[in-house]
Amino acid sequence: MQTPTLKLRTPYLIFLGDESRPTYAKTGKGIADWRPELCAGQLRLSNDALDLKLPDMPVGVAADAGVGSLVVGTALVGGNIPHNWLDTLCEAARAGIDIVAGLHTRLDSIAVLRDAAAAGGSRLVDVRIPPHNIPVASGRKRSGKRLLTVGTDCALGKKYTALQLERDMQRAGYDADFRASGQTGIMIAGTGIPIDCVVADFISGAAEILSPDNKSEHWDIIEGQGSIYHPGYAAVSHGLLIGSQPDAFVVCHAAGRTHIEGWEEYPLPSIGEVIERTTAIGALTNPGIRCIGISVNTLAVGAEKRADYLAQLSAQYGLPCVDPMIHGTGAIIQQLA
Amino acid sequence: MQTPTLKLRTPYLIFLGDESRPTYAKTGKGIADWRPELCAGQLRLSNDALDLKLPDMPVGVAADAGVGSLVVGTALVGGNIPHNWLDTLCEAARAGIDIVAGLHTRLDSIAVLRDAAAAGGSRLVDVRIPPHNIPVASGRKRSGKRLLTVGTDCALGKKYTALQLERDMQRAGYDADFRASGQTGIMIAGTGIPIDCVVADFISGAAEILSPDNKSEHWDIIEGQGSIYHPGYAAVSHGLLIGSQPDAFVVCHAAGRTHIEGWEEYPLPSIGEVIERTTAIGALTNPGIRCIGISVNTLAVGAEKRADYLAQLSAQYGLPCVDPMIHGTGAIIQQLA
Repeated sequence: MQTPTLKLRTPYLIFLGDESRPTYAKTGKGIADWRPELCAGQLRLSNDALDLKLPDMPVGVAADAGVGSLVVGTALVGGNIPHNWLDTLCEAARAGIDIVAGLHTRLDSIAVLRDAAAAGGSRLVDVRIPPHNIPVASGRKRSGKRLLTVGTDCALGKKYTALQLERDMQRAGYDADFRASGQTGIMIAGTGIPIDCVVADFISGAAEILSPDNKSEHWDIIEGQGSIYHPGYAAVSHGLLIGSQPDAFVVCHAAGRTHIEGWEEYPLPSIGEVIERTTAIGALTNPGIRCIGISVNTLAVGAEKRADYLAQLSAQYGLPCVDPMIHGTGAIIQQLA
Repeated sequence: MQTPTLKLRTPYLIFLGDESRPTYAKTGKGIADWRPELCAGQLRLSNDALDLKLPDMPVGVAADAGVGSLVVGTALVGGNIPHNWLDTLCEAARAGIDIVAGLHTRLDSIAVLRDAAAAGGSRLVDVRIPPHNIPVASGRKRSGKRLLTVGTDCALGKKYTALQLERDMQRAGYDADFRASGQTGIMIAGTGIPIDCVVADFISGAAEILSPDNKSEHWDIIEGQGSIYHPGYAAVSHGLLIGSQPDAFVVCHAAGRTHIEGWEEYPLPSIGEVIERTTAIGALTNPGIRCIGISVNTLAVGAEKRADYLAQLSAQYGLPCVDPMIHGTGAIIQQLA
């Protein structure tokens, strides 16, 4: 069966340019943190650039070592790709290494890079471009089990919660795979579909392809997107929920956030509202859907109040509440037993 | 302000090819029925072709008469555009007439047609291709009033209900405009956005642009798409609902339909479920949203039982219920007063 998901060639050479600010190299750091086994090395254009503690590796060495993809692990803040980047990317492409990025400038819009890739027989992979031939969702019940991370807003840990769940479930003996629905997640997992870039009619179809039929005890841990209460992105969240057919979901939240970020006239929904509506909408394609826990970024609470804050939430909703970066997700996983 | 909606040049020459089957010429008939004032004439390639009772007009006459667009009013069932069609479309394009279609074959993928359009200075307008530069929805409350038609399923009269509401409201003295969200609707209205072809992140943004700020007493009557209970297309319906910010909605239904058409394992939602969830989701961007009526295609009920059927529904939901093609929508419009 044809499965039109993006698939990246591994291992990776993580490209960091001359970026020294951790915030702008989140993607590279995320890959190194969550998939060190996929990272052959890092390529830095300056000694001041962020060090991911991977072997420094020039293009020639990487090509000899069989590196599959140079992955641009830094954000580009406006404008075009700088010349010193471009020289390196072209060199890698000419050496047969795929170039992988999720920049605003499309890689295949740059003539010299196109020429280099043609010469080297390598691919220019823009993780913001979805695969072709995504079908309309069938609604057919698939085999295997699925967990979706959902949120009260964007950018509060849905991807990292899913990755932590995958890690903790695998350690606990579960057969589990992270399924990436966004560009950074795709770079980390080496495969996935950028669901927010799919044409509207095919959102749920893309979600179906993202977590295909599997063994009955297998869990797909699906990276959520946006929030069903988001005035801008709710349709994406809705389509991902319906197509994922999750058996279980975890609500992700950032302590202290009171409004939808960037949409300040919209108050944040309560965790209870998110649980209730996610259950109602998700029941269309999986009547057994249930919430199994709450994952909170507690940075704003502070270490001394964290335990009380989480205990209070847990009592309010009758569900395990964790900060996944601090406690892991073991308490949530116990709900699956 | 830039408003990236498709805009067609009028008046129209409706192209019917040699199509004699009414079902396959629904688009042409829809335009002639709902916007006769936009139709300068029809172009038929055979005497057996359907007659919309418009003046028959060859391309030369149409060009002299100032026709703006040749609109392909028939469906093409599979395969390529037939040669005898293509000759006529090229002749029109060379004569400076825009070619408008919503076929599976993209007009600009046909070299001879591209050349003809370049020679004539005309446009090839594919109504399935959304305009560029659609923004993410802001969620900002817009001035003016909005009514959205929603449905228990696809293909049961959301477009025609909206058009009938526009017609009846205008006759009753309202300042009202139909807003097209699908390809046939766009051809009828001469403007609109094919919302199901928009990239996922921008669905609600497209809906916001489709019904921009307006005079406080003005009504936009927005063509709905799909159903929020549809396993394939719910995300589109959801995004259109949130971006439209409707003050009022009308539920469209086909009597006798028991399952989602083409998704036979999915039972149709009840009208009550559609009312309840549409109100709940729509409240995010317009807390005042309310259902003002039910529009039913009663073909399956038959003339003798129609009145009883509608009266029973009306009593059940406490709302006016009409078959808009038979009774018009006057009873529903009274709810706006």
